[in-house]
Amino acid sequence: MSDQNPVFIPGPTNIPDRLLNAMHMQTRDHRAPDFVETFAPVLEDCKHVFGTETGQVITFPASGTGGWEASITNTLSAGDTVLVARYGMFSHRWIDMCQRHGLEVQVIDCEWGSGAPADKFEQALRADKDKKIKVVLATHNETATGVKSDIAAVRRAMDAAGHPAMLFVDCVSSLASMPFEMDAWGVDIAVSGSQKGFMLSTGMAILGVSQKALAAMESATLPRTFFDFRDMMAANANGGFPYTPPLQLIYGMRESLKMLFEEGLENVYARHHRLAEGVRRAVEAWGLKLCAKSPELYSDTVSAIYVPEGFDSNKLTEHAFNTYGVSFGIGLGQMNGKAFRIGHLGMLTDVMCLSGLATIEMAMADLNYPVELGSGVRAAQEYYRATAAANQ
Amino acid sequence: MSDQNPVFIPGPTNIPDRLLNAMHMQTRDHRAPDFVETFAPVLEDCKHVFGTETGQVITFPASGTGGWEASITNTLSAGDTVLVARYGMFSHRWIDMCQRHGLEVQVIDCEWGSGAPADKFEQALRADKDKKIKVVLATHNETATGVKSDIAAVRRAMDAAGHPAMLFVDCVSSLASMPFEMDAWGVDIAVSGSQKGFMLSTGMAILGVSQKALAAMESATLPRTFFDFRDMMAANANGGFPYTPPLQLIYGMRESLKMLFEEGLENVYARHHRLAEGVRRAVEAWGLKLCAKSPELYSDTVSAIYVPEGFDSNKLTEHAFNTYGVSFGIGLGQMNGKAFRIGHLGMLTDVMCLSGLATIEMAMADLNYPVELGSGVRAAQEYYRATAAANQ
Amino acid sequence: MSDQNPVFIPGPTNIPDRLLNAMHMQTRDHRAPDFVETFAPVLEDCKHVFGTETGQVITFPASGTGGWEASITNTLSAGDTVLVARYGMFSHRWIDMCQRHGLEVQVIDCEWGSGAPADKFEQALRADKDKKIKVVLATHNETATGVKSDIAAVRRAMDAAGHPAMLFVDCVSSLASMPFEMDAWGVDIAVSGSQKGFMLSTGMAILGVSQKALAAMESATLPRTFFDFRDMMAANANGGFPYTPPLQLIYGMRESLKMLFEEGLENVYARHHRLAEGVRRAVEAWGLKLCAKSPELYSDTVSAIYVPEGFDSNKLTEHAFNTYGVSFGIGLGQMNGKAFRIGHLGMLTDVMCLSGLATIEMAMADLNYPVELGSGVRAAQEYYRATAAANQ
Amino acid sequence: MSDQNPVFIPGPTNIPDRLLNAMHMQTRDHRAPDFVETFAPVLEDCKHVFGTETGQVITFPASGTGGWEASITNTLSAGDTVLVARYGMFSHRWIDMCQRHGLEVQVIDCEWGSGAPADKFEQALRADKDKKIKVVLATHNETATGVKSDIAAVRRAMDAAGHPAMLFVDCVSSLASMPFEMDAWGVDIAVSGSQKGFMLSTGMAILGVSQKALAAMESATLPRTFFDFRDMMAANANGGFPYTPPLQLIYGMRESLKMLFEEGLENVYARHHRLAEGVRRAVEAWGLKLCAKSPELYSDTVSAIYVPEGFDSNKLTEHAFNTYGVSFGIGLGQMNGKAFRIGHLGMLTDVMCLSGLATIEMAMADLNYPVELGSGVRAAQEYYRATAAANQ
Repeated sequence: MSDQNPVFIPGPTNIPDRLLNAMHMQTRDHRAPDFVETFAPVLEDCKHVFGTETGQVITFPASGTGGWEASITNTLSAGDTVLVARYGMFSHRWIDMCQRHGLEVQVIDCEWGSGAPADKFEQALRADKDKKIKVVLATHNETATGVKSDIAAVRRAMDAAGHPAMLFVDCVSSLASMPFEMDAWGVDIAVSGSQKGFMLSTGMAILGVSQKALAAMESATLPRTFFDFRDMMAANANGGFPYTPPLQLIYGMRESLKMLFEEGLENVYARHHRLAEGVRRAVEAWGLKLCAKSPELYSDTVSAIYVPEGFDSNKLTEHAFNTYGVSFGIGLGQMNGKAFRIGHLGMLTDVMCLSGLATIEMAMADLNYPVELGSGVRAAQEYYRATAAANQ
Repeated sequence: MSDQNPVFIPGPTNIPDRLLNAMHMQTRDHRAPDFVETFAPVLEDCKHVFGTETGQVITFPASGTGGWEASITNTLSAGDTVLVARYGMFSHRWIDMCQRHGLEVQVIDCEWGSGAPADKFEQALRADKDKKIKVVLATHNETATGVKSDIAAVRRAMDAAGHPAMLFVDCVSSLASMPFEMDAWGVDIAVSGSQKGFMLSTGMAILGVSQKALAAMESATLPRTFFDFRDMMAANANGGFPYTPPLQLIYGMRESLKMLFEEGLENVYARHHRLAEGVRRAVEAWGLKLCAKSPELYSDTVSAIYVPEGFDSNKLTEHAFNTYGVSFGIGLGQMNGKAFRIGHLGMLTDVMCLSGLATIEMAMADLNYPVELGSGVRAAQEYYRATAAANQ
Repeated sequence: MSDQNPVFIPGPTNIPDRLLNAMHMQTRDHRAPDFVETFAPVLEDCKHVFGTETGQVITFPASGTGGWEASITNTLSAGDTVLVARYGMFSHRWIDMCQRHGLEVQVIDCEWGSGAPADKFEQALRADKDKKIKVVLATHNETATGVKSDIAAVRRAMDAAGHPAMLFVDCVSSLASMPFEMDAWGVDIAVSGSQKGFMLSTGMAILGVSQKALAAMESATLPRTFFDFRDMMAANANGGFPYTPPLQLIYGMRESLKMLFEEGLENVYARHHRLAEGVRRAVEAWGLKLCAKSPELYSDTVSAIYVPEGFDSNKLTEHAFNTYGVSFGIGLGQMNGKAFRIGHLGMLTDVMCLSGLATIEMAMADLNYPVELGSGVRAAQEYYRATAAANQ
Repeated sequence: MSDQNPVFIPGPTNIPDRLLNAMHMQTRDHRAPDFVETFAPVLEDCKHVFGTETGQVITFPASGTGGWEASITNTLSAGDTVLVARYGMFSHRWIDMCQRHGLEVQVIDCEWGSGAPADKFEQALRADKDKKIKVVLATHNETATGVKSDIAAVRRAMDAAGHPAMLFVDCVSSLASMPFEMDAWGVDIAVSGSQKGFMLSTGMAILGVSQKALAAMESATLPRTFFDFRDMMAANANGGFPYTPPLQLIYGMRESLKMLFEEGLENVYARHHRLAEGVRRAVEAWGLKLCAKSPELYSDTVSAIYVPEGFDSNKLTEHAFNTYGVSFGIGLGQMNGKAFRIGHLGMLTDVMCLSGLATIEMAMADLNYPVELGSGVRAAQEYYRATAAANQ
């Protein structure tokens, strides 16, 4: 009965019919001119979304995790040192991947709910007299905690320390939903995917790569073939792929970019902020707390919300799914059981958000949460009403 | 921005992806065995939905209005008398059609918001000593007023009067959403369409026809070809159509019937009742009034709701559409400007209903309605919670 | 196994993915501005395809047969006289419909395989001293015989006879595939449908109506409601429909018109001619005969081909379907068993045509036809090669 | 104009509408029970297609090349030796990948057009006294040359040599189209993808992995995360994925398996053989030569065909595409310019094959090839006719 309810997981996101149709296409010859004419502009247009003019966009038929692997194997060698702050599930996973690839990983552990610690990065970099640190890894938007980090501040810290390390950023759950300025922030590799802000199926890792990172590619000795930038760039330059391309996703991406540009990136960001703020008003009305520690950290694509002491957030999300047919994000990692997440990114509307809020309210009431039924919806309604004009 | 919001017009209804996919099919030869094997069971299965074992199902590639025209042209001759009660837009239109086909139309005018007047029908039939009345026309569910009539009572009245007239019923907006018992209620022709309870595109009129109505067909002299039962039945008997069939809709209908039977018709009806009751709780909480005059008349597929004196319902629906991208039904006929309608039929969920209620509340607040924001949503939430178990 | 083979029935035609996708759309509110903005240009653009500037385009959610019924019920009254030539199945059906609507039908019987007899029309009109004949009915493209008539000649004959009758033309299987010039040919009503040259699903009758026919509408007394021009035009003028519109088909039509204009109508016609000529070369190579009696009658959308004496064409089409999974048109009416038909209209390519020719050749060989295997394909290949440049 | 022509590249293959529809689905929560219930049977059912009962199926959201990378990184360590025969483009690429991952690659160079050299493998293995060779790599179906190798013979050779090496097989372009017997042939890893015999979009690497290969996993030290068997198997065991799964492809795979089993794998193989044999008859009639050196090497999924001396195969395929809108495979590697390829795998019919043959014939005639127009089509027609009964 619930096939038509939206999902409120923080990705993959609800796919607009327009994009489902764009991906509903028959096989075409990927060696024919038609493909070249489609793919080249997709790469170009992605640059605008990354906010880069000097960088290069490289895609792989993989998930965002594959994008991470591509970023480190193409720029590093076994034994190289990377500096990472762990403040959520996805930074944690990135650390694990680096370790498994034989890198020295210098970890700065932060409380979950905080963002990238520019000051601690600066300290660590200053302490690295021998410049052994090759890369600083940061997650722009921690999907597990609903925390958006200040990447520009990280760059400023790196510059302040006068350290030549590169800056790699996971923007899987922020790109095309929240402002991202690769060039302005001095990001060397930004990793994203097709299934979040781009509103498509999962299956395409999308990377913005700076000239500095491309230069590092030549000396990097970590083994790679599928994810090799060099093969991909050489093939792309000839309008092709080093292996079979994900045709349907590429045509989908072309349409996705059209949609984003038609709406206007600034408007896309504003819409996400408005949707998110409505959700936050509801959280406040419920008397619950966000995992994100302070307003400047609030993510506009996902809110992670602590349940009251003594309640099990997994029971809540499970109940919402079983009883009302609506999917919310569970608490990940150390937040499992303690928090649930509302994804509010992609092609979403205020009206859809209200249905999610109404649903989780019912689920909380069913499970005897100390939450007033209707209170969150009403708070969100007030906010959406007050800001509706801006939406038109 | 609103492409993914549900519609709350009382039809065409939100189309489940499963049915959109079923209709997404390439041309096949409608003279090939494959077509026959698909179409014959569709006609058979529709009988269950109409509640008939002795009747026949006949379809035409047309809207419900075409179904009406088929019902009268196949059974009547110019100058024949029909008895109709006018209690809404759709009964009004049926009267107009009869008059334009040269029928004598005996009209019983009722207040909008009331249902089929069994007692007045009985009176009129008793008064018809010469049995000139050939047909009694009734609308099962008046889409304009949100009124469901008691068709069984109409039949009882006809029987009580000992009158041989046939009974034709418009069930366009009730079939496959609310119980309909063609045989038990002694309905001679029931007229429906593909775009409401069947959750498909518009384009297929679907009629249940009793043996008595089929017998009348032989003497009827109103001209018809496209809508001629005889041509259609003869062609159907050979597995074909007298002209090109609407292939995609027929395959869609097959899948729609599968969905209805998988859920179970009783469950489909119960779901519609539950969704409707939630909406009615909201209306009550708002302090507004339904057009339907009393609970037994409440339709489970559409609610027509009076706006307070001094407000213009057209501005409300227009505002909801322009500001929040959600479509509600406008007030039709004499209710234009005075009422709006919430369609809650087809493949809808409680979660979707809540989004509609939240939206119209915002719109009412924007236009300074004396309605407490969140009150309707909360009332519906309470009801949906209390009845959620039944939904699983 | 045959799901991906093209069909070679003369309609419904193979639907391009682009149009299947255009029709794959969720319900939208047909009373919202979006609908108006879509539908009005569709009507306007259809005028170009009909070749009319002074006429009006009117559509109904019905098949072409419904379009015929609309044309006569909106312009004629019981007892009116119409003049028709019968030279195929579809002119035959039109005669039947007129008779069933109480019209006096003056029939000129012609041999099947011939076209509209301008000379005999002229004779009959001259003989009609009292100008009782209200309409001349002609079929532009007889789908049963593969004959294209010279409608301009019919008009010249009518003018030569100085007769004020209107001219109604069935162009269901020619419009948007072969040149049609409503204004230049003095056509008063031209009847078509969505499922042939427009490459869509069945379900939309499309009529071009002259001012003269619109004037006739006022005095016509044949009963009609569903097909009433007046209701439809009044509603259309307000951007709506008198009943629920076939939304998906209207969006499909918009995309179909885009495709036709992108290719260019002249190129569309040239493509159909080229495809048809290739088929005719094959027929010649097989030593078989077209039903169409002379080259100027050859239809560019369908070829009806006599099988040799002693063979049953139904067995041939059945065998082709059962053994190779390809649908061809059967012989209709008096040609049943004597001829089969190859539809070559809509979004078809030379390559697809060759697969049809290769298939029917195999089927003929299987049934011991005196036909050299490969001969037709080769003749068509030669022709397609020679004319391929023009295709680019 | 050519949107509806089939492609004859050896993959991705023509996608049946049924599978396009299966992949046309809205986002669902991949952490919900629905996903588990879909994915687990997919893995199980894939085993039948691989012909394994004791092995495990592992998938990754990647192309076949990613599958290769997974196979070596999960089982080998830098410095390990592998034995490969190079007899085409894809074996060549596998060698390159191994070298880039720091493996010692012992290459047996064979003439293109020959298959896996069981005898030379045996020799090499016997010579490997220290058992340094960890894996023998073979390509079951060389897509570049249209050569199918005898994998059972390779296994026999390995056993004869008494060598413990594992056997890895690329079956990307053969699985689900030609018989494959993983267990019977002693294959340790078989690598395939979604876009060939499974008739889906590109984007899913599918591996069959033996218990022996799984055991090797524990000691393998090549770095991997995205492609790590252990993460994937652990997540799969809990009904999930270690990262976002390619939902649409998984649902597509479920439907693809249904289609394959409905037709019956044996029938699928027989159909491919029949289609291929028709193509080979055409090649023979043209007087051209296959790259595959002898009949037992003929691939049933792709035919690579030498053009006559003095002709450029690239001009041929380009001309076929530009003039007739049909894609054929170009000659790869050392066959570039010397051969073209006809892919005849996936959901293809004899009728579709004939259209491809007719097209390439026209293209050859246009370029003055010494080939009789129609000769290949006719030869294929004869064969298809003679074997048609088997197809029903």
